[in-house]
This record gives sequence, C-alpha cells and structure tokens, in this order.
Amino acid sequence: MPNEKMYAFGAAPSAIREIFEYGNRRRAEIGAENVFDLSLGNPSIEPPESFMRSLKKHLESDNALSLFGYTSGPGAAPTRKAIADSIKRRFSFEAEPSDIYMTCGAAASLTITLNALCDEGDGVVLLAPFFPEYRVFAEKAGARVSVVKCKAPDFQPDIEALSAAIDKNTRAVIINSPNNPTGAVYGEEVMRALASMLESKQKEFGRDIFIIADEPYRELCYTAAPPYIPALYANTVVCYSYSKSLSVPGERIGYIFVSPRAHDAKRIFAAVCGAGRALGFVCAPSLMQKVIADCVYDTSDISKYKENRDLLLKGLTDTGYEVSPPDGAFYVFMKCLEPAATAFCERAKKYEVLIVPGDSFGGEGYARLAYCVDKKTIEGAIAGLSRLYKEYEQEK
Amino acid sequence: MPNEKMYAFGAAPSAIREIFEYGNRRRAEIGAENVFDLSLGNPSIEPPESFMRSLKKHLESDNALSLFGYTSGPGAAPTRKAIADSIKRRFSFEAEPSDIYMTCGAAASLTITLNALCDEGDGVVLLAPFFPEYRVFAEKAGARVSVVKCKAPDFQPDIEALSAAIDKNTRAVIINSPNNPTGAVYGEEVMRALASMLESKQKEFGRDIFIIADEPYRELCYTAAPPYIPALYANTVVCYSYSKSLSVPGERIGYIFVSPRAHDAKRIFAAVCGAGRALGFVCAPSLMQKVIADCVYDTSDISKYKENRDLLLKGLTDTGYEVSPPDGAFYVFMKCLEPAATAFCERAKKYEVLIVPGDSFGGEGYARLAYCVDKKTIEGAIAGLSRLYKEYEQEK
Repeated sequence: MPNEKMYAFGAAPSAIREIFEYGNRRRAEIGAENVFDLSLGNPSIEPPESFMRSLKKHLESDNALSLFGYTSGPGAAPTRKAIADSIKRRFSFEAEPSDIYMTCGAAASLTITLNALCDEGDGVVLLAPFFPEYRVFAEKAGARVSVVKCKAPDFQPDIEALSAAIDKNTRAVIINSPNNPTGAVYGEEVMRALASMLESKQKEFGRDIFIIADEPYRELCYTAAPPYIPALYANTVVCYSYSKSLSVPGERIGYIFVSPRAHDAKRIFAAVCGAGRALGFVCAPSLMQKVIADCVYDTSDISKYKENRDLLLKGLTDTGYEVSPPDGAFYVFMKCLEPAATAFCERAKKYEVLIVPGDSFGGEGYARLAYCVDKKTIEGAIAGLSRLYKEYEQEK
Repeated sequence: MPNEKMYAFGAAPSAIREIFEYGNRRRAEIGAENVFDLSLGNPSIEPPESFMRSLKKHLESDNALSLFGYTSGPGAAPTRKAIADSIKRRFSFEAEPSDIYMTCGAAASLTITLNALCDEGDGVVLLAPFFPEYRVFAEKAGARVSVVKCKAPDFQPDIEALSAAIDKNTRAVIINSPNNPTGAVYGEEVMRALASMLESKQKEFGRDIFIIADEPYRELCYTAAPPYIPALYANTVVCYSYSKSLSVPGERIGYIFVSPRAHDAKRIFAAVCGAGRALGFVCAPSLMQKVIADCVYDTSDISKYKENRDLLLKGLTDTGYEVSPPDGAFYVFMKCLEPAATAFCERAKKYEVLIVPGDSFGGEGYARLAYCVDKKTIEGAIAGLSRLYKEYEQEK
C-alpha cells in the first residue's frame, strides 16, 4: 500500500546491518573483547582538537539565533569561502564560493547531484566494487544503472570495459577513490586515460558526460594522494563529506563542488540548488557549517589507521590470504577461500570474526574488512582468520 | 542540459528571497533600525535554557566518537523513546519508539513521507493558503497537486470544497495547523468533520487516504491548542520539526510519527525508512538528536510572540485593516487594500515596510506579516502601514 519501491528499500535486509546486529548479540553474550568485528566503516579516531575547539568557541561567543538559525540554501557565506579557498590552495584549482553548495553529508551530496544531472532514463555507470547505496540513489533519481568491473587484484578502473559501457544515454560515471570497499586509490595515469576516453565519448555522442567524484575518503590516503579530478576532466562534480576526515559521520556535513570548468556550470549549480530544495534539504546544519569553516585544512590523526592497515595486511599475507595492499580509506578487500563469499564470512563467525561478503558491493568472492577499530580487534581477527585458513587447507 | 525541472526549482525567483535581499540592501543604505521587515519566518526568541544546558552537558561528558557518530537510520534509540513518551504524555495517544523516524527537519519529514506514501500520479491535496514548498515536494515525489481554498476571513478548511476535490487517485491531504501563512489554528469541530469526510471517501474509493499533519508550529499557539490529529483520524502521519518550538531552524532536526492506528502502519514505517535512504538521509544529525532527547517538553519563551501578535493586531485593526485574529504560528494574513497583493506590498516599501504578497501561498489579495521580530520593528511597520492606509483612502 505504501510506495512499493520505497518499501523495498526500507525492508530489504542489509548485509552490513545484519552483521552489525549479530555482533551486538555476540558482544552481549561473550563480551565485547571476544568479538572481532571488522564489519563497520565507522571512524575510530577522535575528531581533531581544532574541531572541538571551534565548537566550543562558537557556543561561547556566538549569538544563539544566528548560530542555530537558517543559513542561505547553498550554505553560509564564510563556510563556502573557506572551502573554495582550500580547494584553490590545496589543489591549485580555481574555485569560488558560488561553486560550493553545502550538504547534509556524502549521501545528500550524491542524491542532489544525481537528481540535478539526470533525466528519467539517463545512464549512470558504476565501477564495481562500489558502495551499494549508489544504486539506490541513482535509481531513485530516475537513472538506469550499469556496472563495470574493475581489474583484480588491485581494483583499478578497466578503461576498455568502461568505454564499452558508455552509450548515447550515459549522463554520469561515479568515481570513488579512495574506494569503499577495496581501499584502491585510482592513480593519475588511469584517471587521465579515463578522462580522455570520456572526452571522446562526449564528442561521439554530442552530449555532456559527467564524472561524479565521490571523495569522502580523500584525506585517508597512505601512499600518494589521488589526483584532483576537476583538474583532469572539465565536466566534474565533486561530492565531499567531512564524516571520515574529521570523524564526525553522524553530523551530516559535506559539500558539492560544481567545477567552474564544467559546461553550463552556472545552470548545473542552479539545478543543484533546485534538487536540494525538492529533496527536502533546506540548508546544511548551521552549527556544523560554522565549525567546518575553521577546520578545512584539518584531519583526525590518520596515522593510526595506517598502523592498523599495515598490521592487518601483514597478518593476512603472512597467513596466506590474497590481498592487494589498499592505498586509502580504511578497508581491505580480501579474496575469500571459496567462491561463495557469504559462506566464507559465515564460517569466520566460528572464530568471532565479523566481515562483510563482497557480493553486496559487486565484488563476488571477496570480503570487506574495515580496520577502523582498535589494535586488539585486528589482532584477534588475524588469529581467527588464520585458524580459518588452516581449516580450509585441511579440507583440500 | 541539467534536469530542467530541478533547474527551474533552483533558478525560480522566490518572492520571499527577493524581499529578503531587498531588505539587506535597504538596511545597508538607511540603517537596520529604519527598515521594518516582516518578511521572514525566522524565530526571534532565544532557544530555551534547557537546550543550551543539554548541548554543553553532552559536549563535556560524552565520548566524541559516539556523540558525533552515526546513529541508526531511524534515529538514536533514547531520542525515539523520549519523543514517543512525550506523545503519550502530552496527547494521551499511543506511540512507541518504533513509530518514530528522526529527520533533518520539517522539509525532510515532508519529502520522506510524500515519497513513502505516493505512487507516480497519486493525488495530494493542499488547503490554500499553504507553504509554497509543499507543491515542490509533492511534485518531486511524482504526485499531482490539487488546491482547495480555505474559507475567508478566518481561513478554516472548507469541508465541502475539500470533499469535492478528493478522487479515486487521492493519496494524501496536507494539513498545516497552526498555519503558515495565515496563523489559523484548525479547530476540533472542523477537524472532526474533515476526518469523517475522509473516512467516507476511503470507503467510497476503497483506498487509504492519509492526512499528512505538518506541525512545526504546534507549540506556537495563543488560544486553544489544536486537536491531536492522530486521535481523530487513523491514517495520519505527523511531520514535526523543532525549528520553531526551540528556535533552532538551522539545525535541521525533526521527526516523522507514523500513527500505529494507520492501516499497514509497519509497512508504511518501512517505506519511510526506504524513502529516507533513497533521498540521501543517512540519519538525522547526531549531536542534535541527543540534545532533543533532553528538551521534548520545552519551548522558547513564546509569550513574546503573543505580545507581538497582540500589538500588531491592534495596530492594524485600529488603522482600519481587515485582519482575522491568528491563533497560532507567528504570522498575520492581512487583506490588502487593492486586489493585486504584489502592487500593495510594493507600495508598502515606500514606508520601508517589507511584507510578502499572499499570491505565492495561494492567498491572492492578502499579504503575510511575520511578527517574529522585535517590538520596534512592529511599531515602525504599523506606523508605515497606517500612512499607506491613508494614501489609499485619499485615492478613493
């Protein structure tokens, strides 16, 4: 009786949510220290000092009506300026406050951008493995989704396969680097090739094709930083969130940056404002907008994620697991010991190790391990997965 | 090139926004104290002490990762429980935490509810005058909008006209009481008649018809409180926001309450969860969810709005204007001195009085005066409107 599609989106069991609830039950039964839960991409490192300091400063010195009041739809002017300035300074890329639209986080950045760019039936291409909500967001925006597999084992984009998937209806390709769930960072070379391929597809079909660069993990990078996509490809819209860089995922704060080099950039920005309005986003949360303006150059202390990454990677490869070293985010995408990832992850529960089958990310035969946890949890998970490995060996 | 409809929503000049910008220019030119701006529905009374106290308490004593972390999609359990308890206690109406879905404010409550309830082409009925964003939200959800005028001068629902507007495709009627822009509070008698009419329409068409009760102004009431609609009509979904009651409109925090008496209530709740997900709402802002749990029985000191209301009402009626005393919200809906409200409001600018033509609210020939301002602004506006009245008199 309600809208069937919305009902399905709400009622569908989510692999991650189910594992999360299983974990809660096990923690209650055997104690949290005995459960090695690598299922959730939830930051485990405190926000930086500057974030807490700014929050307190605003609460102490600002007028409450202005601090908690409406900002204009696209965001508070000083915040938009701070972000535009940071883009100029960090990426040597032109950006004005009028190119920045503040959002309630990464998901909002994506739904607003998709609704602004897509007409009913337009094509949106996803590179698998991908964050499963992309499909939900794109379909709700009326788009048709097609999926192109990245190349194992390092999960870099397959330009040839991507090229074959672009047709006369394609409106956008979502690029998520550093990637959830693989941790892959798409290098400059492959991104240049991707941009040049899209340029020629635009000419071939006489139509703008956008890169939607979903970059909540940009700051979580352990080797070279990913290239700044707007510098490589004109028709780019960047979707950003401070959830991971500042460890404040519940505060729902991010932005959309419509590259001024994009064709019809001003009209696209207006459509972003219109989509934000029509989807029910009046403005991004006001207090957080003001705090963000003070923190645009800061991140949590991600050296701890790096330690976790190295520890987990070594533990898994020493055991014998096939893992491509992830350069960013806080995930390892590991090849399971049998083709059915769900069965493998189910067996890992015997050792109280909780990991997510790759299937829901479009990465069959793999499992996602989130290492945004404490060191003991990683050590316990390695021990458990090592016993599981021996089990599989004995069955050979 | 972007989505044309989203572009139109973003590029369309908004009457309120244009007046707001005109006001900013005039304030810069002649000083804020000489501009009598009654154009904006922005709270002018500080949040209650309990709000600030709770905010500081959480910042001092909570763990940052949990304070700023994801809550579950429908919201933090203690917040949902506090709200459900407050509904039980305040309205003697059954409510469980599992009936409450936390949102990023009133607009989000409405878009999520509309997307959850409506299929493409379903009818949504609005009672004019109405908040103009309703049309945007409903159309984006795929609904067809029809408008039924309320009865002047007190702007109560016209049950007969409403009954005639309900057809076999109608899915919902949006009820906004206390009303923006009229300040009308729909009384118990008319709401009972409306409920009973909808009951018989449901039977006639063999189909559920919902009341979407948009109630951000419920606490801003100067005579009798409006009846609690779920107690009168089973198929009700309440959309609430703390923007006005706690004077925190920029913080984007509210809820949806799916009445447990609604047909298929559990499925509707699942569809609400699905729509929230598909529109890009991951969870409502976390810190504010925690603060709200401490403030569900509190409001700003609305006695000041009452003083403003009485002052403005007396000033206008003494002058000779036709005004029906508004019982709630912070608006007076006044009959203009000529049929063209836009021309009348334009002439008011001569006296530096800024008011919004009723046309964009579906209330032609009227103007909205927002009295959430300080006393001096109201006095200046009365003086200016009184001179304007004399001008019109002399032209007769």
